[in-house]
Amino acid sequence: MIQPNIPDTDRPRVVIVGGGFGGINLAKALRNAPVQVVLLDRNNYHLFQPLLYQVATAGLEPDSIAFPLRGIFKHQKNLHFRMAEVRGVRRDENVLETNIGDIRYNYLVIATGSNTNFFGNKIIEEHAIGMKSLIEAVQIRNYVLKQFEECLLLKDESEIRPKLNFVMVGGGPTGVELAGAFAELRRYILPKDYPELPLHLMNIYLIEASPRVLAAMSETSSRKTAEGLEHIGVKVMTGTAVKDYDGLNLLLSNGETIQTQSLLWSAGVKGFPISGLPEGVVLPNGRITVNDHNLVEGTTNIYAIGDIGQMLNDPRFPKGYPMVAQVAMQQGKQLGHNIKAGLQGGAFKPFKYKDLGSMATIGRNRAVAEFSGMRLSGYLAWIAWMIVHLLNLMGFRNKLVVFINWFYRYFTYDRGTRIIIKRGAANIVKLRQSVYQSDPSIGL
Amino acid sequence: MIQPNIPDTDRPRVVIVGGGFGGINLAKALRNAPVQVVLLDRNNYHLFQPLLYQVATAGLEPDSIAFPLRGIFKHQKNLHFRMAEVRGVRRDENVLETNIGDIRYNYLVIATGSNTNFFGNKIIEEHAIGMKSLIEAVQIRNYVLKQFEECLLLKDESEIRPKLNFVMVGGGPTGVELAGAFAELRRYILPKDYPELPLHLMNIYLIEASPRVLAAMSETSSRKTAEGLEHIGVKVMTGTAVKDYDGLNLLLSNGETIQTQSLLWSAGVKGFPISGLPEGVVLPNGRITVNDHNLVEGTTNIYAIGDIGQMLNDPRFPKGYPMVAQVAMQQGKQLGHNIKAGLQGGAFKPFKYKDLGSMATIGRNRAVAEFSGMRLSGYLAWIAWMIVHLLNLMGFRNKLVVFINWFYRYFTYDRGTRIIIKRGAANIVKLRQSVYQSDPSIGL
Repeated sequence: MIQPNIPDTDRPRVVIVGGGFGGINLAKALRNAPVQVVLLDRNNYHLFQPLLYQVATAGLEPDSIAFPLRGIFKHQKNLHFRMAEVRGVRRDENVLETNIGDIRYNYLVIATGSNTNFFGNKIIEEHAIGMKSLIEAVQIRNYVLKQFEECLLLKDESEIRPKLNFVMVGGGPTGVELAGAFAELRRYILPKDYPELPLHLMNIYLIEASPRVLAAMSETSSRKTAEGLEHIGVKVMTGTAVKDYDGLNLLLSNGETIQTQSLLWSAGVKGFPISGLPEGVVLPNGRITVNDHNLVEGTTNIYAIGDIGQMLNDPRFPKGYPMVAQVAMQQGKQLGHNIKAGLQGGAFKPFKYKDLGSMATIGRNRAVAEFSGMRLSGYLAWIAWMIVHLLNLMGFRNKLVVFINWFYRYFTYDRGTRIIIKRGAANIVKLRQSVYQSDPSIGL
Repeated sequence: MIQPNIPDTDRPRVVIVGGGFGGINLAKALRNAPVQVVLLDRNNYHLFQPLLYQVATAGLEPDSIAFPLRGIFKHQKNLHFRMAEVRGVRRDENVLETNIGDIRYNYLVIATGSNTNFFGNKIIEEHAIGMKSLIEAVQIRNYVLKQFEECLLLKDESEIRPKLNFVMVGGGPTGVELAGAFAELRRYILPKDYPELPLHLMNIYLIEASPRVLAAMSETSSRKTAEGLEHIGVKVMTGTAVKDYDGLNLLLSNGETIQTQSLLWSAGVKGFPISGLPEGVVLPNGRITVNDHNLVEGTTNIYAIGDIGQMLNDPRFPKGYPMVAQVAMQQGKQLGHNIKAGLQGGAFKPFKYKDLGSMATIGRNRAVAEFSGMRLSGYLAWIAWMIVHLLNLMGFRNKLVVFINWFYRYFTYDRGTRIIIKRGAANIVKLRQSVYQSDPSIGL
């Protein structure tokens, strides 16, 4: 019989749902606190999402940006990790319902992050690919490489065009970085790998509904980014929204239609809260209303941190803090300190966001960065981008492998990991059902 | 409409089926020959099978041992690669039937290798995992890590035992290396990652029907291997065959029963020939009878090289050459030279196998190796094993990444890639059907 098997102690139990930036920083902050920490995640690894786009474009191995959660916490004795999917909460009993059984809590922290928002458009949801998980990034890589292989089997230009039109929707960092990486693939890799491919038919579009890309940065950075992308051959269309899509024809708000079979969607994210929360605290975008201690409104011991929480205590951010790693990390850390202080009779301190800046890479030798009042662009910003990402990547081995990949790619103009991992035809064994398989197929 | 779209030239066309060790060495040998080379593979990468077991045991990224075939041949102008699955051959027309259409050939070379042989036992085939493809290795990694996670959710020892009994069937290099790697996982990784796991219940069995492991090597090496494995905690059972399995109870020929839910099968391989070959040339083990030029009996222009071909011109190997990379590489190379010579009016030279030796790693600092009349074991053999494998691995980037992983693992006793890549619950997009998807699910 499946049961969580978490030992009962006389310490209060903090249950954290989600091993993203918020969850792991909270768990670390509780290292020496007199609590029992239970960390739950549906995966057994922490994912470094900022580099997902490089996995999707065959620049990095999937394993390089994932770090096993058990590895992170192997020296933290007060922490128990369980791979689990959360179903809901019974607040009156202080019990969390999961697929591995009920788990009692004294403090519950929801740190489930966000997922792709298709804004209710079912057809787009069915045909477009989001990019929030490792498996999605690998799917994009597989899918894109398959498009190139399949183009070689076609003679009719009208069949080839939609396969070679790659459309990124959403001009945030994800869309910008994906578009830039595709432009580099076209320039450096495809002519060598696919000399027979009619590359002049390949187009890369970046479509953004608002007037500029990277809207969270300054107008100068936005302009430089758009120029940089145009320079390497991306068609940037701002002030343009997606109206409709049927799996082939993408209708835009300016009346244009692009034929594409490769629609990559990063136009928005939303929260996926757990059920059982008080009425009215879950907003239409799935975020949960919290006070400036990250406490969920209407509860006394349930918190929400990171993307999933919406806190309105800063006039600079009237719609809540941006859904970025920085906020999650800082909220996780502070909630940890608050819980610790509270147990010693101290008061909770309100959260104050310290904006450390933001950056996005456009392509080889080219990025934009803004921090501490400085604005960088070009080569220097690109170096800064690499250093910041390497430093934040979890684990020495991952840092090293990523560095080697970048180093290698810089000097050889090559990308190592352009392989299509697919399930074999007949010889795949059906493994027995597992509690960790919500999907009937084998997991991978 | 899908068609192979291979340009017609006045050069004779050599169609190679399979991008393994045999296929790529043949293709390379034809680099400057006045022929058109068409290389087909169901995957877009060459797989370095000797290191598969390290992927299965979370020591290496899958991408590190796969190298894109297009990358290997990007400078070879007379070669066209197509991702394709072969269905059969129409010999009277010199046409190969594939899932991307018919392909005409002047020379056809079958280099499809071998796959796991379950010797007709359907129940074992259904429940055991083979290890011949990248996806199988990743499946093993996922599966094994899931067993550990699931054990934590169980209290009843009778439920935990079968999950922690890992049984390798087949005492060849694959079984030996897998068993050794599992023993290292148990010793160095699991106590840290799973402090709550009842590790004393974990057993690693290596079962071999013949009287000794590594039967292709000397008796001394066999003995040292068995001793080395026992030393690190593997239960080696030679002269023991598998009688039956029902998914839980594994019945052995000595009357013992082992309860296991983790049965890894490397007890044999067989060929999977294409249909349409002359009657009688395909042997019961799926290999194709060839003469000493690798020509398929009863044909004039169809060849079989590597594992799939069975050549009987060497009294040392009365059942044909061993199904190892060395034979495939040498046969590929020589067939290339023969075809080139033949086109210039020269004669085909018969194949002569030059045995370069063999080796297997048992664990940290411990391996056996035999070459040029020398027998090594222990640390020196282990170093030799690493050097030989690194040198033979395709591509500078892969060599570097593998080296870094080994280096890191040696000094930290850590394994970086112990992540479970699984398909998410609900948010996976169903991508449109592709010619490269024999499976209805998304490929990965």
